[in-house]
Amino acid sequence: MATECIVAKYRIETALELERVAEGIAGEQSSGTFLPVPGETEELKARARARVVAIRELESVAGPSLPGGRLGEAGRYRRAEVTLSFPMANLGTNLVTLMATVCGNLYELAEHTGCKLLDLELPDAFAARYPGPQFGIEGTRELAGVRGRPIIGTIVKPSVGLTPDQTAALVRMLGEAGIDFIKDDELMANPPHSPLAERVKAVLRVIDELADRTGKRVMYAFNISDEVEWMLRHHDLVVEAGGTCVMVSIHAVGLAGLLELRRRSRLPIHGHRNGWGMLTRHPLLGVEFGAWQKIWRLAGVDHLHVNGLKNKFWEPDDSVVRSIESCLAPLYAPPGPACPVMPVVSSGQWGGQAPETYRRTRTIDLLYVAGGGIMAHPGGPASGVRALREAWEAAVAGVPLEDYAREHGALRETLAKFGGLRERGGEA
Amino acid sequence: MATECIVAKYRIETALELERVAEGIAGEQSSGTFLPVPGETEELKARARARVVAIRELESVAGPSLPGGRLGEAGRYRRAEVTLSFPMANLGTNLVTLMATVCGNLYELAEHTGCKLLDLELPDAFAARYPGPQFGIEGTRELAGVRGRPIIGTIVKPSVGLTPDQTAALVRMLGEAGIDFIKDDELMANPPHSPLAERVKAVLRVIDELADRTGKRVMYAFNISDEVEWMLRHHDLVVEAGGTCVMVSIHAVGLAGLLELRRRSRLPIHGHRNGWGMLTRHPLLGVEFGAWQKIWRLAGVDHLHVNGLKNKFWEPDDSVVRSIESCLAPLYAPPGPACPVMPVVSSGQWGGQAPETYRRTRTIDLLYVAGGGIMAHPGGPASGVRALREAWEAAVAGVPLEDYAREHGALRETLAKFGGLRERGGEA
Repeated sequence: MATECIVAKYRIETALELERVAEGIAGEQSSGTFLPVPGETEELKARARARVVAIRELESVAGPSLPGGRLGEAGRYRRAEVTLSFPMANLGTNLVTLMATVCGNLYELAEHTGCKLLDLELPDAFAARYPGPQFGIEGTRELAGVRGRPIIGTIVKPSVGLTPDQTAALVRMLGEAGIDFIKDDELMANPPHSPLAERVKAVLRVIDELADRTGKRVMYAFNISDEVEWMLRHHDLVVEAGGTCVMVSIHAVGLAGLLELRRRSRLPIHGHRNGWGMLTRHPLLGVEFGAWQKIWRLAGVDHLHVNGLKNKFWEPDDSVVRSIESCLAPLYAPPGPACPVMPVVSSGQWGGQAPETYRRTRTIDLLYVAGGGIMAHPGGPASGVRALREAWEAAVAGVPLEDYAREHGALRETLAKFGGLRERGGEA
Repeated sequence: MATECIVAKYRIETALELERVAEGIAGEQSSGTFLPVPGETEELKARARARVVAIRELESVAGPSLPGGRLGEAGRYRRAEVTLSFPMANLGTNLVTLMATVCGNLYELAEHTGCKLLDLELPDAFAARYPGPQFGIEGTRELAGVRGRPIIGTIVKPSVGLTPDQTAALVRMLGEAGIDFIKDDELMANPPHSPLAERVKAVLRVIDELADRTGKRVMYAFNISDEVEWMLRHHDLVVEAGGTCVMVSIHAVGLAGLLELRRRSRLPIHGHRNGWGMLTRHPLLGVEFGAWQKIWRLAGVDHLHVNGLKNKFWEPDDSVVRSIESCLAPLYAPPGPACPVMPVVSSGQWGGQAPETYRRTRTIDLLYVAGGGIMAHPGGPASGVRALREAWEAAVAGVPLEDYAREHGALRETLAKFGGLRERGGEA
């Protein structure tokens, strides 16, 4: 293991010499000492020091992206992609220390005015310790009973405030409409007005009834985000009541909590990434999703939110496409396990984005979540669900939505209602 | 509880109308729906909707701070402090959902081009569920046996690479020098070259010997950052061996993991905040420490890193002073519990910052951590420790260091060696 390495690529910005700054980051995040100390031998340095593998210079700019950086003589701020290699032996397979190594103190260094983790390559050694997603795409499809198309989902709205019975009534309506998947809002876990134990009972009673009647068992992601003891208790409760999914806010729960849930879980874990904007929205601070998702896949989420094309949030389509691709790309180089997770596409989705989503990603392995596109369909929720399926049929067949809509009434009505919202920021 | 509220203050930037954007954030993070749904009654909205309490307009700027924001007609970006009030009943006392509420999807909204959480006021209801720091300042002083001055600490360097025996040899030298506190590096938890179990044994054997000889028991913070099972196992191992502190990387471990450790811990928890730069370095994205530290105090850390004045990182002194003050300020309004945590002052500290640190914070309740100031002292580490104590004596007495140094040789030598590094970024 001592010869294996963790490779991390960063985008940095600095007014100082690029080589010096790259070496500074490598030192800070490995064996660096500012002064010689007893025990710091050449042998130790050769073994533990992170290496600068590559520096690719990019553009330069007149002003700094972040405050607090040292000034350089030229007054220009140079940007570069810097690739570092950390000896695996520095941390073993400790995933928490991996995060402290690749996303730790380096953001605080005054030597740069911008630092963002772009990509991460992990040795197979992690695969032995962390099992990755337990269900992933195949297991989720099996439990949801959906093949050959995206899983069509929706979210309980209003975000907070509904009682268990009100939630169950909504689930009944959506289940009768043919929905595959429903999720709690991330703001709604175990509040006084809807204790999780009661919500599980009320919702699964309805899902059982629907399954008896239609043969189709809706997958419901219960938001069990909480401290460990309660997450596990609530997970057990969902299992006992026959539920098929639990959901957590991954950033709020954190890595150790999620790992503990994964170790004990018997259900797919739906990973909600709220708070993610804070880690990625600035182009020169934080992390890109392609690197970040690897850590959470290792920790064992089965579904991961990625926004959607033409979403109502800030994120551009190119970034969303990269996120979808990263969830489906192998976690380790072959012959290591691939461990794909199901990308959860949501935010302003109504079906109109299906052709472009398919054209750019060539996948139907998506959990495609729509709110208004279903609830506000002129023909009611059943027509809304049908319209989304039709949009995906057209997308996969390569038939323009307008053409497909001629013989598909639900899609036709969706286009008439939402078709004007094509630009980014459509409220559907 | 239904009438109690969580109050959160944000700095935002937007090209749109401030009132509309503030209401948009409040809606997104509470009962917001873009379309009426069954069950969304006026009663529910009145109960669950977050309210905009205040908007204080600040400056306006020509360009956006973050990408992806909607364009406004005026082409200017206005900034404001916006105070929101969330009904406590929306989430109960679920700390994980609190984070999803005040630091969740709101960062992704295209309606703004900047959003930073500045402050957070929590109802006393949280005090009933979360015990806060178990040891805090008083308990730490008791265990470290240090009264009437800051606790003087240092860190094991090189950051990674030393074997347990090499670490123990360093601890012996530092213990003989009279150090109060030593911590592992955040990059060093349980790697193959220094398994925690062996390090605990080797280090505590030395600390026992020193305690027998000198009567003083050095506090050593073992870095147990890992998944929950291993954190608890390693915590138990430290307890059994007679250790007095454990350390975790709070962001990498996460909230649920830290809470689980706190529930089981019998030792002070030293909270390392590596990764913090990513959450705060941009003035219009993420969180200010004053808000953030409240969440981690609730979760139960006893010590929290705050950088130091004239540190080697990017952070300005004003921000460091605010951080120190926030750790010492009561967590709840009286008569709620105060729950102070020990601020850990570090990064480029050598003693020269003591007068200014004391002048601005008026506290000696600090864990004052220095590396080079101790190890590189011309008279050796014992003189380095003495110099730091002398610097603090002078600071508290209000005597200029240069004057105090006339009768205190260790301080005199420190000033001679490091006194030139007064500007920010001194490498000591």
